[in-house]
Amino acid sequence: MEKRISGTTGLYCLVGSPVGHSGSPAMYNFSFQKQGLDYAYLAFDVQKEQMAQTMAAIRLFKVRGGNITMPCKNIAATLVDELSPAAKIIGAINVFVNDNGHITGHITDGIGFVRNLKEHGIDVKGKKLVVLGAGGAATALQVQSALDGARELAIFNRDDEFYPRAQETVKKIEKAAPTVIVNAYPLADTAKLKAEIADADILVNATVVGMKPLDGQSLIDPSFLRKDLVVADTVYSPLKTKLILDAEKIGCQTAPGKGMLLWQGAAGYKLFAGQEMPVKEYQEYEQQQAAAGK
Amino acid sequence: MEKRISGTTGLYCLVGSPVGHSGSPAMYNFSFQKQGLDYAYLAFDVQKEQMAQTMAAIRLFKVRGGNITMPCKNIAATLVDELSPAAKIIGAINVFVNDNGHITGHITDGIGFVRNLKEHGIDVKGKKLVVLGAGGAATALQVQSALDGARELAIFNRDDEFYPRAQETVKKIEKAAPTVIVNAYPLADTAKLKAEIADADILVNATVVGMKPLDGQSLIDPSFLRKDLVVADTVYSPLKTKLILDAEKIGCQTAPGKGMLLWQGAAGYKLFAGQEMPVKEYQEYEQQQAAAGK
Repeated sequence: MEKRISGTTGLYCLVGSPVGHSGSPAMYNFSFQKQGLDYAYLAFDVQKEQMAQTMAAIRLFKVRGGNITMPCKNIAATLVDELSPAAKIIGAINVFVNDNGHITGHITDGIGFVRNLKEHGIDVKGKKLVVLGAGGAATALQVQSALDGARELAIFNRDDEFYPRAQETVKKIEKAAPTVIVNAYPLADTAKLKAEIADADILVNATVVGMKPLDGQSLIDPSFLRKDLVVADTVYSPLKTKLILDAEKIGCQTAPGKGMLLWQGAAGYKLFAGQEMPVKEYQEYEQQQAAAGK
Repeated sequence: MEKRISGTTGLYCLVGSPVGHSGSPAMYNFSFQKQGLDYAYLAFDVQKEQMAQTMAAIRLFKVRGGNITMPCKNIAATLVDELSPAAKIIGAINVFVNDNGHITGHITDGIGFVRNLKEHGIDVKGKKLVVLGAGGAATALQVQSALDGARELAIFNRDDEFYPRAQETVKKIEKAAPTVIVNAYPLADTAKLKAEIADADILVNATVVGMKPLDGQSLIDPSFLRKDLVVADTVYSPLKTKLILDAEKIGCQTAPGKGMLLWQGAAGYKLFAGQEMPVKEYQEYEQQQAAAGK
């Protein structure tokens, strides 16, 4: 029989809204149990306006750490005692670590992206990336790639209310990593997009295009792709977006979003549980569950 | 493999201090799992001064219910939306039920006491009880016995700073159950104690005497006991106090504190989980664990 929750079991949690369908509780509880750690991980549905009270409750209940998800990542960054370098630049956190009352905020979306590429044998160091998107995940992976030594970043976003965020990210990266060449362009400038992809090493979709209800869609004309381009996506459902499928057809090396999700989660685990997450064991467990139709 | 905590798992908790060695998390998590309920029960160490914030956190995290222990039982009763009749009289709660934001406080110590006697074939209805003690558990079982139809209650307590609580309980019971004869006496009045026990049906120790470091001690001279007296104790560690052992020697029917603990826990479960606790299964599990040296 498995070890049960006792009076000394430490709590970890995910906060944000919605959280009901998050895979994090299952993944982290599996990992805690696998490693014999006396912790439990639960999800709490809280709104942005409740984050100050949430952080107070986290302190009160001595929650050891956990994750922050939408729409609370930015406000949470203003409520912790310390920020990691990337979290400070981005102004958002998705991981918190409570070290005896001193709470540090981290952002692992970018770490997960870089690690996922590494698992596919690709190092961002010295590379030129074209990244579509200016949202939270996009910003995180743009900043992390710059911090990890990317040579150049070309950010494309629709010229909508989020476009200023792309421009802001350019400024942040110029300040934090002055040697990196970084530019933002409107997505509607197809000629520019084609030109930037032409001499890029890695193309990344960090928008929701490709995810339901936009599955089957891609922002990239397949003719812009070429065999020696690495194509990554942040969308993990479906496992293969139209962009990834298009890239596979051309013979590109691809890095679908599922791996980024997994590795950003593993990076969080390392931060708040203090050891490597049993990633391989969890993947095997997930495959068994999937095979059993669960 | 057992069902894991997911994003929709509901939280239950115990709050108070200390809570690390409480058996409640193990018992309730066992029961949730046995009955396929998607809940987890954790313990949070909080002080009396933090109870207002704790109740706010319970509301924020939509904690479904749980327990309040020392030293927070009284203050908690002032922070809920509604009190059960016994909790209102006693002014303390050990159980709370969060019904979509409306929190009701209950006290099950007395219910557990009455139920434990019933499990031993004894009904408090129409009986005269002599009860030693004026603390929280003592007050709860005195009030519950009165509400459940006891004929008479004689409360004995040391003439110390807690003596007024015994006198206060007398007044509360006179108001809540006017037909019950109830009196408080100083424990030092041995002649009175002997006389009251002489025509009582049930004698109850609800003080800490008999529990470490007072194990091996009893407030009752064995000569006061007689074969047809029922002797109960609220102390559950050791399983048999000196009072219980003395009573066994004389041939009294006894009801040690362990059963009261179990049944007050089961009464709480029924209130906050909405169904009967699998008591027999848990007892078997506990015995297996004990046999395995856990």
